[in-house]
Formats: sequence, structure tokens, C-alpha cells
Amino acid sequence: MIHEHDTIAAPATAAGGAIAVIRVSGDDSIALTDRIFRGRTPLTDADGHTLRYGRIMDGERTVDDVLVAVFRAPHSYTGEDGVEISCHGSSYIVAEILRLLGQAGARMAQPGEFTIRAYLAGKMDLSQAEAVADLIASSNRATHTLATTQMRGGYSSQLDSLCDRLLHLTSLLELELDFGEEDVEFADRTALRDTMNDIDARIRSLGDSFSLGNAIKEGVAVAIAGSPNVGKSTLLNRLLNEDRAMVSDIAGTTRDVIEERVNIDGVVFRFLDTAGIRATDDTLEKMGISRSLSSIASAQIILHMIDAREVESRGRIPEPQFPLREGQTLLTVVNKIDTVAELQLAYDTIAISARSGEGIDRLRKALRSSVDTSALYHGDPIISNSRHYEALRQADEALRRALEGLDNGLPTDLLSEEIRDVIRNINTITGRKEIVPDTVLQNIFSKFCIGK
Amino acid sequence: MIHEHDTIAAPATAAGGAIAVIRVSGDDSIALTDRIFRGRTPLTDADGHTLRYGRIMDGERTVDDVLVAVFRAPHSYTGEDGVEISCHGSSYIVAEILRLLGQAGARMAQPGEFTIRAYLAGKMDLSQAEAVADLIASSNRATHTLATTQMRGGYSSQLDSLCDRLLHLTSLLELELDFGEEDVEFADRTALRDTMNDIDARIRSLGDSFSLGNAIKEGVAVAIAGSPNVGKSTLLNRLLNEDRAMVSDIAGTTRDVIEERVNIDGVVFRFLDTAGIRATDDTLEKMGISRSLSSIASAQIILHMIDAREVESRGRIPEPQFPLREGQTLLTVVNKIDTVAELQLAYDTIAISARSGEGIDRLRKALRSSVDTSALYHGDPIISNSRHYEALRQADEALRRALEGLDNGLPTDLLSEEIRDVIRNINTITGRKEIVPDTVLQNIFSKFCIGK
Repeated sequence: MIHEHDTIAAPATAAGGAIAVIRVSGDDSIALTDRIFRGRTPLTDADGHTLRYGRIMDGERTVDDVLVAVFRAPHSYTGEDGVEISCHGSSYIVAEILRLLGQAGARMAQPGEFTIRAYLAGKMDLSQAEAVADLIASSNRATHTLATTQMRGGYSSQLDSLCDRLLHLTSLLELELDFGEEDVEFADRTALRDTMNDIDARIRSLGDSFSLGNAIKEGVAVAIAGSPNVGKSTLLNRLLNEDRAMVSDIAGTTRDVIEERVNIDGVVFRFLDTAGIRATDDTLEKMGISRSLSSIASAQIILHMIDAREVESRGRIPEPQFPLREGQTLLTVVNKIDTVAELQLAYDTIAISARSGEGIDRLRKALRSSVDTSALYHGDPIISNSRHYEALRQADEALRRALEGLDNGLPTDLLSEEIRDVIRNINTITGRKEIVPDTVLQNIFSKFCIGK
Repeated sequence: MIHEHDTIAAPATAAGGAIAVIRVSGDDSIALTDRIFRGRTPLTDADGHTLRYGRIMDGERTVDDVLVAVFRAPHSYTGEDGVEISCHGSSYIVAEILRLLGQAGARMAQPGEFTIRAYLAGKMDLSQAEAVADLIASSNRATHTLATTQMRGGYSSQLDSLCDRLLHLTSLLELELDFGEEDVEFADRTALRDTMNDIDARIRSLGDSFSLGNAIKEGVAVAIAGSPNVGKSTLLNRLLNEDRAMVSDIAGTTRDVIEERVNIDGVVFRFLDTAGIRATDDTLEKMGISRSLSSIASAQIILHMIDAREVESRGRIPEPQFPLREGQTLLTVVNKIDTVAELQLAYDTIAISARSGEGIDRLRKALRSSVDTSALYHGDPIISNSRHYEALRQADEALRRALEGLDNGLPTDLLSEEIRDVIRNINTITGRKEIVPDTVLQNIFSKFCIGK
């Protein structure tokens, strides 16, 4: 990717508001916009961080009255000169202004191109740039906190310090290679192993945070499971009724899929309404049940729903008719509690009436408290990006190979190569440039005197 | 309506973009926003038309990095002090900033409240304020030109000069009343009648422009009519295919209604696909045909579609099976031209194949040229607002009563009252305050010496 400063333009706001904003960035952006702008003074005379009122002209035809914000490099989002044109929020006007900017020499920006320029200008690292997209998509406090932490360099700094320690280790190992024939050992192998184990633990804990981070970002999957007619869909509707506005806020939440999102106390839960499970010979029903079972297997929380009358007649809660895997939370929910006289239930069983709404608050609290987000609000770094998770997983694998190599007396050059692989993988997260061996040595020698 | 300068806030952009803009206006707006803003310097220190970078804080929690544009009265849209906060385009962030502004003392703005303030501050008249809404909704060059002309005061100035002339006439009449017993006649009755006739013609021509203005704004209604199976729906699909993007751009264009909008060379046409017309005893089909006929009656243009094979077998174009009213344009379209060998057709008959697309360009050109928009592009005042149309209609009625009164020797005080009614109606369009008689007299006497 070559860093060019040609002028790019794109609408920065969605269609349909009172105003629309068009972003323009690049070395020539101010002079270029000036060609279609008519104000009291030219934009090229404007200081950075000032606003100019005027008109966008198509020859002698006025396209719109606009306010133009002028930015001067490096004090802008992209680090380049730039303008932001606020116009009336008409799709026609936005299209016309973009057309005129194009005629004046601007190019339509690719998705994310402003942020790529910000990254290339050193305004943010890769993981921070990725967090910008998450921040824009954030729809509740949890996803917002996650994105904000990452954008403020939440784990970038932690990863950078891990890399620095690894780099120091490799440098010492590579220094030994320079003195190849002399059999010196700059890197104490025991200290090396301890440090690598320590780093391994850190990478693993970041990796483990991914399931929480991903759940917060994508919504915590909750399968509503049970026999037919225990009231699963009624419960889903009841939960949705409480948050109908929230549901309609989220794009893609349609009735075509049996998956609905509900925001409970700042965390989004993704409810999967499954087909009732029972023994059957009907082919279509069997297919439905098989899909239910795979939904249940993929969920983080399973609401096992039972009809209160069944509990009453059996005298106990029936066993779930589905397997549980490690890490899944099972909540037992007895529905239709209004249809029985009295039931003795274990303290952790949640008795509800999906129809009347009784007990739903307790169920919501139980769901919310089964997701531990305390790490999030304490500002602990949490990985929510699957690219980062994959990079960490590969870094961890390389680290284990390096540790194994250390145990088995792997030659120093190969050991060093494994550690470099760890660094490379971690660096893909923040996008730090790979540090060349020369720089490493310089780094070492600046602090370290060989003669001593 | 009382003009208060309390601080109002509202999102100015639609949800779903890269950035969102929140507008705040009112005497206290800058100091109030400063309470939740943390930048290098306070916003209260900022000059008008400058931008400040900083963070919106909820106590010690950062909600977002923002750019705040500061406006100083009277140099703002509303004429008041104001700020525009550009934040990341997340619905959660927008809601949080609005919540914090509310806590700091702002009130959520009512729809149009910023523009109401601009009107009350004398930044624009009522018809210009109404044009702002039309400008935002404009989706093509014609609606854009219409709104722009109105916003630049297109017919406001023409209406104002009409009102001034009427006002002068009434003032002269009312002056006569002051000299009641002396039987003076300041207003020459012949000149009065000529002027009123002249004004009547102007009001009528503005009123007549409404059908063009309304057609441009709402789309020109085109009924596709003909016998069953002549290819009406195929033609609709063909016309839509050419402009599918435009169609999906327009809100409310759904498949539930048999009405679709197509932009042809800058003018939106509203196509009404009607049920085929034929003699039938089927009750349901009869109902469909009756609805077709009322669609046809309401349309401005009617495409009378005929199957080429019917023309071939009959040896002539069949008569339309529906009545035409004055002012409607009839276009005769012979479809399925690819199914016959050769046909002799009148020069103004349009031969097409809706299936292959043959002749569709000619049809589009014929549609476009049947709407004369030259007035629009010559900047002639065109009424497109039905409130204005209604006011003009009522002004015209009052003017005819006044003219009639003049012919029948209506007493001067009653005649003056009729003319005032004309002025009142015209003034509701621009929202000019009614000029009280004292002011009128002052106005007269300043130019006019009674002793002379």
C-alpha cells in the first residue's frame, strides 16, 4: 500500500438527516474545494479549525448554502489538509456536491480510506483504527466501553510491552550468534524460560478474554430450549416487548430469522428460539430438532424451559434432553407458574409466567448476572476482534514451539526465529513495523557495553 | 408562540453514518456544552466560526472524541449562540451526548424548532422556512430547483410587492374614512379597478403554477391503462429496471402499492399500474376496474396501451375505454410490436416492446416532453406548497368580492375590509406581520402631505 496524498471525498453521514457532511482530505483538498465554493473570502485563506459560510456553485447555479470546516495538516483526522462540507441533508445535494468535487479533481474515497490515512500518518495504530469501526457500530454501553478502551490503546500498549520484552530476548540470542565460535551465553536460559512462560500466560489471558469480548460485540447467545408448547415463543415475545424499541434499533433484526436481540442492562443478548425437542418419526420435525440441538450447542447460555404442570405431575424437574458442553451456563426456567397451585422448587430455579410477565424480572437479572462484565468496566484489556484473536492464537503456538525448542536444546538461530514469529504475529495486531535486526542491535548496544 | 432563547438540542444527522452531528442552540448553549466538554481551552473562550477538538465527558468517563463548532449570535442559523458537536456515528454515543446535554440543562428540540427560531429571528420568512424542508427532501434537479428558488425568496418578493400595492390602495381608502363627512375621494376608482385586476391576474398565474409545482414535488402521475394482458405491468417493470437505484432511493416506494416512481431526465414520474379494463360480470374484477378508472381520472398523463396484434386485426387503434378530462395528456402506446410483421401507425403513436425494451427510449422522451418545466429553469416563481396554494385561492376569492363590491358601490369601509382580507391571506404565506392601520397611515403620511 502506497501512501498517496491525492484528494479523496466521501459522505460522512447517513442519508436522511437535516444536514449531511461530506469529508474531503488530501494535499490539494482546500484549493480543490475552493473551485466550487463561493464565500466572502477563499477557503485557501482560511486558518485551520475555522468555519466558512458560503455556497457550492455549479457554474452560476447555486447547489446549496453550506458551512465548510477547514483543517490544516497535521491537525486533522487524517493528518492531511482537509475540509468538511455541511450541506442540507438531501441525497440529491450530496450527490451533486460529490459530482462537482469529482469534476474539480477529487477521487471518491474507498471504505475506511480516511482511517487508513490516519493510520499511515501515525495518528493511530491498526487496532485503534479497527476500534473506530467498532465505536461507530456501538449500540450500548458495553460495546461502547469495549471500543473506547481499544481506541485509547487499551491492549496496544500491553502488546507493545510484550513485544519489547521478546525483542530484548531475541536480541540477546542473536548477539550470541555474532560471537558464534566463542560459545558465549548472553541470554540466561532459565530467565529466558521464565520470561517466555510469563508472556505465554499474558497472551493466553488476552486470548481468553475473546469469548467475553466477542459475546459483548456480537451479543450473548441464549438458546431457549425445551419440549414443544412449554411457552418458548411466548417467552421470546415477552422479552422483546420489554425492549421493542431497542430491537427495532438493530439492523437485520427481522422476523424471518428466529433470532432476536434484547438489551438487558447494557448487554445485548441474542435469543435463539428453538423448535421443541421430543421423540418423533416425522422427518421435517426431526430436521427442526436437529437444528435446535445445534443452536443449543452454539449458545453460551441455555434457558431450559419446563411446563409447571409437568413438574407438578412428575414431582421433579425433568432432565434436559440435550447435552451441555463445558463453559455453557444452564438456567432452569419453570413456565406457566400461574396454572399450578404451589410448587417446591430449588432456589436457583426461576419460576415465571411468560404470559402474565410474572418472574420475568428475576429471569432478566439471572441472565445479566451470568455474564461477568466486571473486567470490562475495570478497563481490563479485552479482545473482541477475531483477527486479533487469530493473531494471538498463532503467537501462542509459536511461543509454545519456542519453549519446546528451549527445552530440547534447539540451536540458537532456530530458537530466535521462533521468537521472531511470535513478535511478527503480535505486531500484526497493532501494525507496528517489523523491527529489523540492525535496529535491534543498535537498541541493545546503546544500553549495553560489550567491553565491560 | 413566544420567542424564548432557552437551549435546545437535537441530532441533525440520520443514524448510521461515520459521523453524527448534534445541534445545540440558545443563549446558554456554549456555556452549557462546556460543562460536558473537556478540551485544551473552554468553549466559552472560542470565537464564532471556529472548531475545538476535545472529549465529551460523563464525569470521568469519556463518551467520545468530538469536534465542536462554535457559533456566536447573530452569525448562526438560528441567529442565537450555538454549537454543533461532531461525534462518531454511533446511536449509543448520540443518545449519551443528548442525555448529558439534557442533564446540563438543554431541552430536546421539537421538529423544526431550529428553523422556527431562524424565522423568529428574521433570518427567513415563512415560505423560505418551508422551503428548507423541501430542500432537504429534494431528490432530483427539478425538486431541488423548486426548493432553492423558494428559499432564495422566489415568490416572497413578488408577493410582498403585491401586498405593498394593495396596502397602498387600502390606505387611500381608509384615509377617505377619516375625512368621512367631507366626501373626498383619494383613491381613483378606475385606477383602483385596474390595479386590482392586475393583481388578480398575478395571483391566478401563481395559483396556476401550482399544478406544475405540485407535480414536480409529488411526482407527475402517469396512469398505465388498457385492456387486460396488453403488458402494463411488464412496461412498469421495464421502466423501473432502467432506474432501479433511483427507485430504491425514494422512501415509501414499496411493492405493496401499485405505484412506482421513476426519475426521467430530472423529473419524477409516479406510475400507476391499473387493472385491465373490460366488460365483466365478476364483482371483484368490477371493483378493480372502478379503481382503475379513478386512478386514470386523477392522473396527469395517461398511457393508453394497446396490443399490436389487436391493432393488426382491427386495422386501427381502438378508442380508449375511459373518459379524458381537460388538461390530461393522452399518449397512445402500441406494445408487443415484436409480435407483428408491420403496422401503419400515426406519427404520434409510440410503438414499443416492453419485453425487449424496443421503443422505450422514445416513450421516456415523450413522457418527459409532455411536462413543460421551462418555467422552472427560467427561475419563474412556482407554487408547490398546498398551504400557499390554499392561501392564494382564498386571496383570489376575496379579491373577486372586492372587485364585485367596487362595481356595486360597496361602502368604502366594507371594500377596505375585503382588500385587507386579500392582504391577510397573502401574508400568511410569507408570515409577514399584519400591518396595523396606524402603521399604514404613518406610512402614507410620510410620503404624502395632507396640506398640499
